[in-house]
Amino acid sequence: MKAYSRHEVARAFGATLRETRRERGVSQDALAERCDFNRCYPSLLERGLRQPTLAMLLRLAGALEIQPERLVTETVGRLQEPANTATRA
Amino acid sequence: MKAYSRHEVARAFGATLRETRRERGVSQDALAERCDFNRCYPSLLERGLRQPTLAMLLRLAGALEIQPERLVTETVGRLQEPANTATRA
Repeated sequence: MKAYSRHEVARAFGATLRETRRERGVSQDALAERCDFNRCYPSLLERGLRQPTLAMLLRLAGALEIQPERLVTETVGRLQEPANTATRA
Repeated sequence: MKAYSRHEVARAFGATLRETRRERGVSQDALAERCDFNRCYPSLLERGLRQPTLAMLLRLAGALEIQPERLVTETVGRLQEPANTATRA
């Protein structure tokens, strides 16, 4: 696997988180509350302005009731999409 | 999944990283070099004194030639071990 910058990872994770949260019908505020995060934090993550630590990733997965490794797999999938390569070029 | 503290996650991840690195026969110095990390960083991670961001986790997995989700699954497995519960009690 090639090395991705933290900005690339943040953007890919943000898109994954937003999609998963919406599928689950959870608002950003509700997610923040469930995770005991500052209420701005889900928005920063979804916009790719922050990337999560592993502990935060586990907490987000718990709040969204999904396996944490799914968030990782989907993030990696987005990083490997041709569109992402095009953006970086 | 219950919410784990960042210290618990850091310890569980550190143990996972150490085991995986040793299985792969990679030294801490070599791992740091492959990841372009400060050479102290693998030791801090393995001792549970730091926890990785998602971008770092992907980079470590790449350097160890394993799927990043495996590091997550094994960390969660350690967190859920009865011994870990006992340590927390």
